[in-house]
Amino acid sequence: MKVVVLGGGPGGYVAAIRAAQLGGEVTLIEKSTIGGTCLNIGCIPTKVLLHSAELFNEIKDSSKFGIEVSGDIKVNWSELQSRKKIVVNTLVSGVRSLLAFNKVKIINGVGNFETKNLVSVTKENGAVENIEFDKVIISTGSIPVIPPIEGKDLPGVIDSTDALSLNNIPKSMVIIGGGVIGIEFANAYNAFGCNVTIIEMLPFILPPVDREISEIIKSKLNSEGIEIYNNCKVTKIEESGKVLSVAFINGDKQLKVDAEKVLVAVGRRAFIEELNLEKAGVKTEKGCIIVNDRMETSVDGIYAIGDCTGKNMLAHVASEQGVVAAENIMGKNVKMDYKTVPACVYTKPELASVGLTEEQVKEKGIDYKVGKFPLIANGKSLIMNEISGIIKIIADKKYDEVLGVHILGPRATDLITEGALALRLETTLQEIATTVHAHPTVGEAIKEAVLAVNKEAIHMINK
Amino acid sequence: MKVVVLGGGPGGYVAAIRAAQLGGEVTLIEKSTIGGTCLNIGCIPTKVLLHSAELFNEIKDSSKFGIEVSGDIKVNWSELQSRKKIVVNTLVSGVRSLLAFNKVKIINGVGNFETKNLVSVTKENGAVENIEFDKVIISTGSIPVIPPIEGKDLPGVIDSTDALSLNNIPKSMVIIGGGVIGIEFANAYNAFGCNVTIIEMLPFILPPVDREISEIIKSKLNSEGIEIYNNCKVTKIEESGKVLSVAFINGDKQLKVDAEKVLVAVGRRAFIEELNLEKAGVKTEKGCIIVNDRMETSVDGIYAIGDCTGKNMLAHVASEQGVVAAENIMGKNVKMDYKTVPACVYTKPELASVGLTEEQVKEKGIDYKVGKFPLIANGKSLIMNEISGIIKIIADKKYDEVLGVHILGPRATDLITEGALALRLETTLQEIATTVHAHPTVGEAIKEAVLAVNKEAIHMINK
Repeated sequence: MKVVVLGGGPGGYVAAIRAAQLGGEVTLIEKSTIGGTCLNIGCIPTKVLLHSAELFNEIKDSSKFGIEVSGDIKVNWSELQSRKKIVVNTLVSGVRSLLAFNKVKIINGVGNFETKNLVSVTKENGAVENIEFDKVIISTGSIPVIPPIEGKDLPGVIDSTDALSLNNIPKSMVIIGGGVIGIEFANAYNAFGCNVTIIEMLPFILPPVDREISEIIKSKLNSEGIEIYNNCKVTKIEESGKVLSVAFINGDKQLKVDAEKVLVAVGRRAFIEELNLEKAGVKTEKGCIIVNDRMETSVDGIYAIGDCTGKNMLAHVASEQGVVAAENIMGKNVKMDYKTVPACVYTKPELASVGLTEEQVKEKGIDYKVGKFPLIANGKSLIMNEISGIIKIIADKKYDEVLGVHILGPRATDLITEGALALRLETTLQEIATTVHAHPTVGEAIKEAVLAVNKEAIHMINK
Repeated sequence: MKVVVLGGGPGGYVAAIRAAQLGGEVTLIEKSTIGGTCLNIGCIPTKVLLHSAELFNEIKDSSKFGIEVSGDIKVNWSELQSRKKIVVNTLVSGVRSLLAFNKVKIINGVGNFETKNLVSVTKENGAVENIEFDKVIISTGSIPVIPPIEGKDLPGVIDSTDALSLNNIPKSMVIIGGGVIGIEFANAYNAFGCNVTIIEMLPFILPPVDREISEIIKSKLNSEGIEIYNNCKVTKIEESGKVLSVAFINGDKQLKVDAEKVLVAVGRRAFIEELNLEKAGVKTEKGCIIVNDRMETSVDGIYAIGDCTGKNMLAHVASEQGVVAAENIMGKNVKMDYKTVPACVYTKPELASVGLTEEQVKEKGIDYKVGKFPLIANGKSLIMNEISGIIKIIADKKYDEVLGVHILGPRATDLITEGALALRLETTLQEIATTVHAHPTVGEAIKEAVLAVNKEAIHMINK
């Protein structure tokens, strides 16, 4: 089976490896660097910056833990930038080795459909190679959306890619957009001493997050000195002396904030325009490739995965879809299930959730119950001095089935694995409650939150 | 229902709260401080020291992460000691409030059985109060074992309680015993600059841990400068000038190590001698109270939980047994299941496991498979620069049921929650493999290790 994968991000390279494991003869076409947005200009480099930001804050706070640092504590930005490159390069070369080991052929270039069984690949030197295949997986990812704001092209107005590689830490930054990308950069640059202001159009930040949790994280960010304007629309960016001035409106009110840099982080959109999809007859909708839960497009033999399908723009979704597509191509019959997809935000404390939010269960008209456990009552969180978090469990009223797990707390992004497995197995509250959780861990608090649903938590007053 | 609980540790206080939640009229008798060993001189204070030890190491290493600290980095031992007290006091007073809210009466004193329905409590001032009850839960915990080594009473020979409250960080320490307690103190004091030597009688450290994992952690500890002698028996401790000299043998070889302090950490034993158990007729075996899986002793109406039952000396086991005892007393019919009990060691990286080790499946003659994923191939571990870990999954060969999860890596003690739930629900490899794991997290590596069992891991070469 000749398989072509178009795009080598976390969807495409995983699909390529999986198809090869199952015996496929795989060619991966990538126009830039293997690893895609995620490894090169997304998840990985942002987390390198955020990890150092967290450490920097911890060092500044270390006297609380009985550790004294007598001199200056400084960010060595160029060192941090080179660490970022080393981590990225290590992972990219790791993926290249895995592809090589799995005998996946890599072609550097831009792939265009000629027919439903043929792509032409235009390489950097202009040479064109035609490749025939039995099946193809499209995984061309997404790019940042830049809204048509006046002044968007001024120097100093940047996108998330630029924000990873600034020459120095700016004194001030306005971030347009309070989604995950905006919030993570706000967190990092604020820690490094940059004065950060966020402007968000909606009445809340982090739209997909349970509202109660996003309100807590908003207060936390405020308390750390990040200014957040909700319900505000940016109207113009202009130069004002050495800085940029961002004009925005809140209802009738005209407001203005000056900053050295303006990061536009209002979202991402599927990137499919270089594919010549019409030649293959692949249907799209609102700029995304239409797929079913077997990751098949409207054309037999053509699959699409990841951000270009516009489903749920997360690296781990793309990878999972990649496995589903590869396995279906190689003769299995599997379906993508979005139920267990966790969403993580690398704030401090971390935020992670899986399943339904309280807003979603209400909207669906599900009869539900809620249990909440504040981490101020959790021993390990107290030891870590990270007590502003909360764990919130949403369960079905009739069957006690767990429907949503929302964790704001240290290590949340790793703790969410229990929640995802719980959703996968349609777990009841009682099943989690009778699973022993180790002491002293943050994880104990998941069990307490589960017990709290039926007012049986031990380490809090059940109301 | 009048319920008496003897001992206010993590078993007793949890049992008291649970019995009160279900309508019991509960009296808790504690001779010392509420919270028992765990909160006062065990889990909690050690983790306070270990958290600062970890931070101290991170600060010393911070230049790797682009953070420059110009001056001296020092442990302020008295500050750390007072932080330890504050954390402990906060948690103890929290538990006291919860007991008060649940209307649990606390009596400070030592309880002795007079009959199977009456205990006399001797208070600090010598006054004696008799208390009748319908049911009683014994949870008197454990104390350190001090083997009859010549010199064990010399000044400078300490137990784990002493080791938490030393006046200063000693220059050197010999730790007799390479179990969890010994290893955790070794880790903390070594980080603080103390020269640590461990002497262990067995050929390996951390006896209950999967051997392959304990070998990795042993090398890690060695590489950090901790000297470990296995297969060695201490014969004598003597004063030698200003230090203590510990003599030990390895087969025929006579060896000697000098140190400022000698920590004896060879284990703990049930503490039941103040109870007058014979007056109630409660049966014991090898110094532990005999219980069934409903936590009932040999005498109707008398229950026992926690370390004094000698089952599995962990705080979270005691708490779970406490819930089981309380619920059975209050009319439910529940059983203690040890299958999901996680074991954690707070080394760096952390170590956590649940279920069977490879040695145990072999011993039981189970037809098994193993999957392993090294954390050097995990993006988040690389970002955290903690790449020496590994995740090991043991599964049943026929049904692909997960039998053991062993994690050596950052955040292992919290990641193990997924493993515990997997065991609780008799989860198969396929069920975990089709649960989406977020990227970039350490948790992804659990899924990879699960995939590795059937040679289907994506991010490693399956051999």
